[in-house]
Amino acid sequence: MEIESLSENKSLNEECGIFGVWNVPDAAQLTFYGLHALQHRGQEGAGIVSNNNGQLWQERGLGLLSKVFADPQKLANLTGKAAIGHVRYATAGSNGVENIQPFMVNFNDMQVALGHNGNITNAKTLRKQLEDEGAIFQSSSDTEILLHLIRRSKKATFEEQLKEALNQVRGGFAFLLMTPDGIYGALDPHGFRPFVIGKLADDSYVFASETAALNAINAEFVRDVEPGELVKIDDHGMKIDHYTDNTELAIDSMEYVYFARPDSTICGVNVHQARERMGKNLAKEKPVAADIVVGVPNSSLSATLGYSQQSGIPNEMGLIKNQYIARTFIEPTQERREKAVRMKLSAVSSVLQDQRVVLVDDSIVRGTTSKYIIQMLREAGAKEVHVRIASPAFKYPSFYGVDMQTSKELIAANFTKDEIKAKIGADSLEYLSTDGLIAAIDLKHRGAGTGLTTAYFDGNYPSPVYDYEKEVANQAVTFQPELKN
Amino acid sequence: MEIESLSENKSLNEECGIFGVWNVPDAAQLTFYGLHALQHRGQEGAGIVSNNNGQLWQERGLGLLSKVFADPQKLANLTGKAAIGHVRYATAGSNGVENIQPFMVNFNDMQVALGHNGNITNAKTLRKQLEDEGAIFQSSSDTEILLHLIRRSKKATFEEQLKEALNQVRGGFAFLLMTPDGIYGALDPHGFRPFVIGKLADDSYVFASETAALNAINAEFVRDVEPGELVKIDDHGMKIDHYTDNTELAIDSMEYVYFARPDSTICGVNVHQARERMGKNLAKEKPVAADIVVGVPNSSLSATLGYSQQSGIPNEMGLIKNQYIARTFIEPTQERREKAVRMKLSAVSSVLQDQRVVLVDDSIVRGTTSKYIIQMLREAGAKEVHVRIASPAFKYPSFYGVDMQTSKELIAANFTKDEIKAKIGADSLEYLSTDGLIAAIDLKHRGAGTGLTTAYFDGNYPSPVYDYEKEVANQAVTFQPELKN
Amino acid sequence: MEIESLSENKSLNEECGIFGVWNVPDAAQLTFYGLHALQHRGQEGAGIVSNNNGQLWQERGLGLLSKVFADPQKLANLTGKAAIGHVRYATAGSNGVENIQPFMVNFNDMQVALGHNGNITNAKTLRKQLEDEGAIFQSSSDTEILLHLIRRSKKATFEEQLKEALNQVRGGFAFLLMTPDGIYGALDPHGFRPFVIGKLADDSYVFASETAALNAINAEFVRDVEPGELVKIDDHGMKIDHYTDNTELAIDSMEYVYFARPDSTICGVNVHQARERMGKNLAKEKPVAADIVVGVPNSSLSATLGYSQQSGIPNEMGLIKNQYIARTFIEPTQERREKAVRMKLSAVSSVLQDQRVVLVDDSIVRGTTSKYIIQMLREAGAKEVHVRIASPAFKYPSFYGVDMQTSKELIAANFTKDEIKAKIGADSLEYLSTDGLIAAIDLKHRGAGTGLTTAYFDGNYPSPVYDYEKEVANQAVTFQPELKN
Amino acid sequence: MEIESLSENKSLNEECGIFGVWNVPDAAQLTFYGLHALQHRGQEGAGIVSNNNGQLWQERGLGLLSKVFADPQKLANLTGKAAIGHVRYATAGSNGVENIQPFMVNFNDMQVALGHNGNITNAKTLRKQLEDEGAIFQSSSDTEILLHLIRRSKKATFEEQLKEALNQVRGGFAFLLMTPDGIYGALDPHGFRPFVIGKLADDSYVFASETAALNAINAEFVRDVEPGELVKIDDHGMKIDHYTDNTELAIDSMEYVYFARPDSTICGVNVHQARERMGKNLAKEKPVAADIVVGVPNSSLSATLGYSQQSGIPNEMGLIKNQYIARTFIEPTQERREKAVRMKLSAVSSVLQDQRVVLVDDSIVRGTTSKYIIQMLREAGAKEVHVRIASPAFKYPSFYGVDMQTSKELIAANFTKDEIKAKIGADSLEYLSTDGLIAAIDLKHRGAGTGLTTAYFDGNYPSPVYDYEKEVANQAVTFQPELKN
Repeated sequence: MEIESLSENKSLNEECGIFGVWNVPDAAQLTFYGLHALQHRGQEGAGIVSNNNGQLWQERGLGLLSKVFADPQKLANLTGKAAIGHVRYATAGSNGVENIQPFMVNFNDMQVALGHNGNITNAKTLRKQLEDEGAIFQSSSDTEILLHLIRRSKKATFEEQLKEALNQVRGGFAFLLMTPDGIYGALDPHGFRPFVIGKLADDSYVFASETAALNAINAEFVRDVEPGELVKIDDHGMKIDHYTDNTELAIDSMEYVYFARPDSTICGVNVHQARERMGKNLAKEKPVAADIVVGVPNSSLSATLGYSQQSGIPNEMGLIKNQYIARTFIEPTQERREKAVRMKLSAVSSVLQDQRVVLVDDSIVRGTTSKYIIQMLREAGAKEVHVRIASPAFKYPSFYGVDMQTSKELIAANFTKDEIKAKIGADSLEYLSTDGLIAAIDLKHRGAGTGLTTAYFDGNYPSPVYDYEKEVANQAVTFQPELKN
Repeated sequence: MEIESLSENKSLNEECGIFGVWNVPDAAQLTFYGLHALQHRGQEGAGIVSNNNGQLWQERGLGLLSKVFADPQKLANLTGKAAIGHVRYATAGSNGVENIQPFMVNFNDMQVALGHNGNITNAKTLRKQLEDEGAIFQSSSDTEILLHLIRRSKKATFEEQLKEALNQVRGGFAFLLMTPDGIYGALDPHGFRPFVIGKLADDSYVFASETAALNAINAEFVRDVEPGELVKIDDHGMKIDHYTDNTELAIDSMEYVYFARPDSTICGVNVHQARERMGKNLAKEKPVAADIVVGVPNSSLSATLGYSQQSGIPNEMGLIKNQYIARTFIEPTQERREKAVRMKLSAVSSVLQDQRVVLVDDSIVRGTTSKYIIQMLREAGAKEVHVRIASPAFKYPSFYGVDMQTSKELIAANFTKDEIKAKIGADSLEYLSTDGLIAAIDLKHRGAGTGLTTAYFDGNYPSPVYDYEKEVANQAVTFQPELKN
Repeated sequence: MEIESLSENKSLNEECGIFGVWNVPDAAQLTFYGLHALQHRGQEGAGIVSNNNGQLWQERGLGLLSKVFADPQKLANLTGKAAIGHVRYATAGSNGVENIQPFMVNFNDMQVALGHNGNITNAKTLRKQLEDEGAIFQSSSDTEILLHLIRRSKKATFEEQLKEALNQVRGGFAFLLMTPDGIYGALDPHGFRPFVIGKLADDSYVFASETAALNAINAEFVRDVEPGELVKIDDHGMKIDHYTDNTELAIDSMEYVYFARPDSTICGVNVHQARERMGKNLAKEKPVAADIVVGVPNSSLSATLGYSQQSGIPNEMGLIKNQYIARTFIEPTQERREKAVRMKLSAVSSVLQDQRVVLVDDSIVRGTTSKYIIQMLREAGAKEVHVRIASPAFKYPSFYGVDMQTSKELIAANFTKDEIKAKIGADSLEYLSTDGLIAAIDLKHRGAGTGLTTAYFDGNYPSPVYDYEKEVANQAVTFQPELKN
Repeated sequence: MEIESLSENKSLNEECGIFGVWNVPDAAQLTFYGLHALQHRGQEGAGIVSNNNGQLWQERGLGLLSKVFADPQKLANLTGKAAIGHVRYATAGSNGVENIQPFMVNFNDMQVALGHNGNITNAKTLRKQLEDEGAIFQSSSDTEILLHLIRRSKKATFEEQLKEALNQVRGGFAFLLMTPDGIYGALDPHGFRPFVIGKLADDSYVFASETAALNAINAEFVRDVEPGELVKIDDHGMKIDHYTDNTELAIDSMEYVYFARPDSTICGVNVHQARERMGKNLAKEKPVAADIVVGVPNSSLSATLGYSQQSGIPNEMGLIKNQYIARTFIEPTQERREKAVRMKLSAVSSVLQDQRVVLVDDSIVRGTTSKYIIQMLREAGAKEVHVRIASPAFKYPSFYGVDMQTSKELIAANFTKDEIKAKIGADSLEYLSTDGLIAAIDLKHRGAGTGLTTAYFDGNYPSPVYDYEKEVANQAVTFQPELKN
């Protein structure tokens, strides 16, 4: 038996959330609250490391935060005025407690804790190289690599060592490190993942994966961490530095489409509003004659609002989500997935009876959930079900921090739109165009390019993918050249 | 430290959900799924009793279903083709495992299991009387009373004993009993609580507190249990009988306003649609000039939709709910409540900035949550906040199955509308009228009266309240005479 | 998988230990320590009820004390200056938490907590009778009966009601009750089970199943509770009363042979010394030419000492017991039992090599353990193994508080001594005579009779066995007439 | 609150037990049973790594084996026909789960698991050196060092790398390693810790810290691992090799005195019999006029037997040990220690009354336990208490695998015999002489020297102590020169 992750049927998982705070009483408690606001980014493990006058303390475990810290003593153990924390989505085969972050290492001269959100594309190569030089890895996680690179640097200071290490790793990463005297945040040169700085008081700063975590602890938003930056927070306040100048913003567009919380703002664009515009653009591009618009709760509700506003078709609550997370029990996978959908979602017959329904969803990955939802809508009386997806068809894998590293399971990579329509049992199926997506997010204030990674949809990768090249070997993809360091 | 119930800040708690099924393989698993769909009716304890060829087996524990049945062995222990289950909201001082239902008693000649949703208004009197005759109570729950009454009956059959017992208890109750050879469902003469019958196959029937639980297991809705009925499900199918003819429908209106799931249908009226109409009527009765309508998720979203549709003011997602339930830690209660609100809800500044907001909520009980929400909206930039409550002011306590048995904590019982407006920091505050509520629910197909209990709002109780009379002693209330048995 | 009780292979289980204390700070903690000293009397459940100024609080659970009270909050919840506690051996089919004692019932006019060590022989009859009068039983335990009898009494005071109830039950019982104002201890008219009173200070008294529990908390031994007595401890000190005058001491001889701790003293006779004398008498009655005496740890070590002293054959440590209790895993029962013996005991080859061994054990019940032990001794090099049992052959069941209510599993009831010798693989097998046992315990200071129940060995029951008559129907047993009340 | 280790009051803790098995079905289960027999060597953590066709699987946790593997799924997860396991005593400040062994590391070309019993005396130096070269340590344990040394070796094969690594570490160690294709056992050049090889079948071998673990799983003893040896068990059977020729047996004498199980045999000498001879020698060296000999259970019972046999004074059971392990609760340390002693031991008054007692104990470390025991004996009536210690006075710390690395807490290092006698309240106090100890263990069949480390008693260390030199700086100690590699 397994705990169902909320996104099991979606099979599209963010790989982590990070949070850190400096100079505040009850730092570990604040970190708990901050991580709670980031729980949607990782539900399979959590940890917090606190810093009590230079001594680091660690607690971590498998499962949701509320499970890991069920014993209040655990948070109480984490004394001190600074802390960093991590919520983790565990990829297959890596679900041991040794992989739960933040990692903490004890050098003879210092302690370091490290949390990571992202994916290092040259990890295998670096790991092999480090092992050949005698390095030992205890986790199966890529994150450990950074520690080895730091430690092997011949530079004089920790900060210089860290910069050297950051210049050796490739891919998507937001790193959060804590040493006895400060917290460091670093973002990859493309800024694939969101990462922000907040402020609780003049001398008390916060790092978080999303602004929603700042709100949760009543911290004021200061600014995004920019691509290539290395930001330090310590008793002297915040110091913004950079380990490379050669950067080009390319945020993962799926953060706007699906991952991030609607109340978060990334690079100045509120996620809810971006989704609403995706819905509007979708209605413009792919109209349909229908009686009601129904969104798949909760991630599609913003796009649904937009579709309804633009189309004038009333937005009705035809699907209800159970607010309690539960397990299904051991049974054949097919049946289990269907049961999982039924436990999470319920169709409202009195709303759906005899209606022509526009079903708005944010994305289709495997298509399984869509099939069950459409089936439920029809059982509840829907006359027609027109599926409108508020993002383009998902055809290419991601290597910058999302657990979807092969196109094998992507239904849109393997079937035509018509085939998918038939498979999921829809009366019609349409997607938002990539241009419509880019326009909805609208990062043009950020420079010449789109500021986005849209490789999922168009196969145009903003950088080489190194160790993953064989995964995209036979597909029509393009790689932008590596940014020079 | 306490687990936060979802409704802690509301301080208005349903007292239970019940579910039972006869003649189906994996009856306990189906009961688990059914109870999961009823988890919103009780989060502090759960239990299931199964029936394996006449032998009853029991598992129960404190906390959410997912905790009580965390060890898969527990469900596996519950063998057999029939089961009943219960989710419980524990009132203060009664949180021991001995109070978790279903209760199971072993007589020398039979076993009986019993689950209850409701509140018996003459419980103290009956209990004293029974104890004076030598009865021993192990729980502090009223539910045990029914077992004693059955057992003391001199009637010849269990069914007759049960009927005699049902005629002795007063108040609101939906009882679910299982004996070795069948399941019995009984509803009080006013039908205060929802209670329905479903069907899985020709010889397999289901009882549930709400239709949402039928959907969850793919059962077909058959009919509501009617006031005064005693329904038996056994190997001969379903037999509908009644223990009294003297009935008058008076469903607790708060089921439509707040408790029940929007996808449930009670007495032929879908809850979501009733709420939508409450929102429409509210918009008609209490319009206001504003830029956006924002609902308090999730319970107010239907009414918000209605308010927006009727008023033409756009419905915007200005408040986001965290889908993960978490605890707050030991701290002064005031601060803790505020933190709990912040952990559950988050305001979206980009939506709210400089807007005149209509904030739609389903009800105000203590007013604390409203205050924090309005504060959050203003911090997020809202220019004006006009509170519109989709039910009348909550002034009188309930004694038929809701944990609100005193008017002391009811803000509307103690302050004027203007005072409340000031306390919660709103720019304006208005409620739906009782007539508007009755019209929105619209049970006129059910007979001459309203079919509803609206005592919370108008102090007109559909029956005497027996042992609770002192709680309403100094208030202007009326009691309808007891229905004759 | 099951937790192995220490005595699983012996299949002879004491049914409980009780402990109570009045007027001392941290009463619940002292009760925990007292019960810990009685843990050998019951390992499958434990509970404590405390009394804080007349308000009773309860905690109970399945497993060893250390598990039930693993969360320190549980003991901390049990505030107050008085407490009673219970450790339970759960008989088959009765292992739910609803059977864990002390039971606590809430009457409208008082609370009562009750713990019981023993077995009521007319329980079925009384239970049926009570149920016919409308009583409801929630546990499958006999103990609940006393509460019903008390409650149905028409006497004026609780004490009189209790006396009346005590006169209705038959069999073996030591009852411990706590009401808001005192603790009551009562012993059956034959005094089958040990039960003592201790003193911590002038106004602070203690009840316990064995004197070992008094030692554990540094209490002074005052006196045994005598057969037929009802002793009350309250703010006025200790009051000794009796509910019947018609008594005749008949302590269960197995308390001396096997159940009680060697450091306990029962009716003035130290258990270790009694066992030592059993070993001496055994050596006199059943000598054998051998090189070393080896005892089965730990229960046989005293008798082994006696056998060695009397015979002059050196006592050697040929068997070692693992001090950690562990489980075996799911495997065929035969193999599992053998593994359980190997996990508990280990033979010392260098001691046993080429030796003629006298193996002293306190008793043989099913014979399984003996077989494995002898096999281990031989594998370790023993040349001859002469089994000497320091009690008579165990042929008849017990009904006064020991879990051995049928002779089916008693090897000596079903096979001759020679057959048993062959089955267990011994070179010779001899038992202590019943006279030898009686002389070793030596209660002649207590009156004319032996003061002992030796029914296990001679089938002479000191009282009728009521509801159990069919269990001994075809055996040559005698029942002493019931003592008149 | 803390779980009391059995030896808390002794403050003398073995640092681990190791066990491994190759080529047997249910290897993890056998390892569980083997570790159970070694539980006395470490109670604060346990782990098992299994090998299923070259893939290693790990489970580990804090606490006793029965707690770590409470969920049967955990053992079930450990599939495969080979396994190694470890029970750990956690030294102060190192009680995180990251320190629980076996450690398991994933190299890109292989997996290695490692368990260790002992203490590396040049660990700090090696660790600093390795860190300076870039190594990262995640545990605070010394054990990790070996993995780094192996990995940094430039030798061609794993076996050669391991040999090179073994030649770099100093101190006491028994290492157990598992790779995909075999299990390796290695012992330090002095053989400080016991380590044996057993056999289950022709192609199935076992490693264990003590022979008791072989008995537990019915394995045949093959031979001791000898100092300087590296033994490999794989599909080709057992291969005995050595990484150094320069060895000199110097087993830690405390293994015979206190640590090892009495049923174990180390270097051909049974522990129980060695202890019995210590008791005999003690009786010869330090006779006293007394009525009874009483041993402190359980560790002193063998020596007590010897003392009694030699002196002719009867061995009586004056102290009883509670077989259940329990906790004491938060209270001032002094009181808590006294309570812990009372919970574990109980004095038998009827045995002790008016007796002149020889109290035999195996050793005195801090003296606290002795004080409380003597007090208990006197309260129980003992007229005189003559303490006889079956080992010499414990004056110097150990650095080869026992948690006693400072002489600060050693009562005999800080007080004269007369002072100690007074502190513990004895009538007389005498120790066994070092010669008496050596003669009792009697390893002369093993070569010219004593074969023993007696540094605790005489300050003569068989090797330099490297990083610990300052701990013995001001004491009159001698170090034997390092054996040349």
